[in-house]
Amino acid sequence: MGEVNIAVLGAGGMVGQKVLEILEERHFPAKSLRLLATARSAGSKVSFRGENLTIEEVDAASFKGVEVAFFCASSEAARELAPQAVRDGAVVIDKSNAFRMDPRVPLAVPEVNPQAIREHDGIIASPNCSTIQLVVALYPLHQLATLRRVLVSTYQSVSGSGREAVEELRTQTVQVLAGEEPAPQAYPYRIAFNLLPHIDSFEENGYTREEMKLVRETRKILREPELAIAATAVRVPVFYAHSESVVIETERSLSSEEARRILENAPGVRVVDDPAALRYPMPEEATGRDEVLVGRIRQDLSAPRGLALWVVADNLRKGAATNAVQIAELLNE
Amino acid sequence: MGEVNIAVLGAGGMVGQKVLEILEERHFPAKSLRLLATARSAGSKVSFRGENLTIEEVDAASFKGVEVAFFCASSEAARELAPQAVRDGAVVIDKSNAFRMDPRVPLAVPEVNPQAIREHDGIIASPNCSTIQLVVALYPLHQLATLRRVLVSTYQSVSGSGREAVEELRTQTVQVLAGEEPAPQAYPYRIAFNLLPHIDSFEENGYTREEMKLVRETRKILREPELAIAATAVRVPVFYAHSESVVIETERSLSSEEARRILENAPGVRVVDDPAALRYPMPEEATGRDEVLVGRIRQDLSAPRGLALWVVADNLRKGAATNAVQIAELLNE
Repeated sequence: MGEVNIAVLGAGGMVGQKVLEILEERHFPAKSLRLLATARSAGSKVSFRGENLTIEEVDAASFKGVEVAFFCASSEAARELAPQAVRDGAVVIDKSNAFRMDPRVPLAVPEVNPQAIREHDGIIASPNCSTIQLVVALYPLHQLATLRRVLVSTYQSVSGSGREAVEELRTQTVQVLAGEEPAPQAYPYRIAFNLLPHIDSFEENGYTREEMKLVRETRKILREPELAIAATAVRVPVFYAHSESVVIETERSLSSEEARRILENAPGVRVVDDPAALRYPMPEEATGRDEVLVGRIRQDLSAPRGLALWVVADNLRKGAATNAVQIAELLNE
Repeated sequence: MGEVNIAVLGAGGMVGQKVLEILEERHFPAKSLRLLATARSAGSKVSFRGENLTIEEVDAASFKGVEVAFFCASSEAARELAPQAVRDGAVVIDKSNAFRMDPRVPLAVPEVNPQAIREHDGIIASPNCSTIQLVVALYPLHQLATLRRVLVSTYQSVSGSGREAVEELRTQTVQVLAGEEPAPQAYPYRIAFNLLPHIDSFEENGYTREEMKLVRETRKILREPELAIAATAVRVPVFYAHSESVVIETERSLSSEEARRILENAPGVRVVDDPAALRYPMPEEATGRDEVLVGRIRQDLSAPRGLALWVVADNLRKGAATNAVQIAELLNE
């Protein structure tokens, strides 16, 4: 693996910080590192490999000499800045929603479709957090038994909405316990001790964009454009890690024992599934890990070739930063 | 409606208290009221219609002269004491799991199967909280379009586990925010800022009893013993109200507009479903209400005759106390 000149755009945000942490952890061969942000967080300091680095404001010269640019910013910033970075010779690994459904842009999860990144035009998209953990868990089952239908209900943590939302859950929790009525800012309603069946904006069909991301991205990654899939996405008062209650139907029948065995040998998956010992995946346990935890694997009682699963992963790590760094590692192989 | 001599067993518990509150609210014609409990909470005082009443320890004479006995206690207590209450001439309305699946015992939700209570042998069971809100929402759709399959993922509040669990969520929340690691008691793991895909004990088939209650009770109430139905039950860090992500398939096709119209006119249902105005059901809004809130009504993208819904209700009110008091009102008509 050669040494690489890298840049991180959005280095002050939660995902940007996590990318730096994971580059360190995985000893990514960074020859140089440029930390970038839009005006808001430019100037702030960030630690990397024991050094205190300053985040620079992104400008026309920012991507000169950069080979891999991690984009951990908004879709707007990605749309504006990715073409410039690509012109300057960088490969952009973009965490935003800007290019995911662009047919020229690969949408990559290294455990599932590593081959996709071979044919890029300078931009590789990393999927939405809730999609990544879903496809890591389902792909091994799909390979063996062919998915016919997927139904997902999500339980998503506030860190998916960024640092303000994490702070808001904390503040509101204290307020509610003190008998005060919080004034919501990050979300339209209180999130402390409450649930919001609403993530991202609503589309015409009554689904939210978050739900439609799960539908569209899963189809693209699995190269199953007609896959029958639907989702309900819910924000829950949890700080870190997203959970998913998943029901699948497969073409060939699959016992829960068989599914468990396949998943035990699947890349990026950790099976946590021993009801007798009260072992099942929980956000608390998934936080800080890179594996997708899968448990509660059982026959769906309502369909002959159905299976139910409970899937939990750290949305900032495998759901965002780790997946992006894994893509960079593949690029650099 | 004649005046009735009533007793409340488990008058010190959360559901027992809520029964007293609702008897007051609905001006239930109580001629006399006897408050009963097992040794643990006997002696404590409870207020009813402005009077301070003392909870007596239940004994062999407790049900003499009682016409309707609300049982808000454990299954064990119900199994032990219901036969005595019935021998003494009372009708027992039991909130526990003891008799629900007994073929001689009606399992009643007044909006759904009021006729069931006509043929009782002294005991009428009230279903589990998560079942009640599900059947109130689904029955009107079933009548019109015939349910073929039901899939439910629940988001259940801690008040379903009683007062200790409510206290534990509060205490643990403070501890976690202070950076301390709580020692779980009411649940096997921390519930504050965490999720537990585990409610009640595990059965042989990998499902929990809570999940199987949803399956079995729904089939019994709808008189559809073969209904294809499966559930995943999850405890969430919310104090009051249970939420359910529901996907159904029906024999005859049903548009989301049609389903909304039917539910708007259904007894016990309140449709909260206007995405453009960010209106959807939430636990915060359902708490303190008797209606089952239904929203996010939309076509299931994964099946031709499928529909997705989000169903929220106060588990202590409609999910327990209100349903029991409604049964008593029907008995007294």
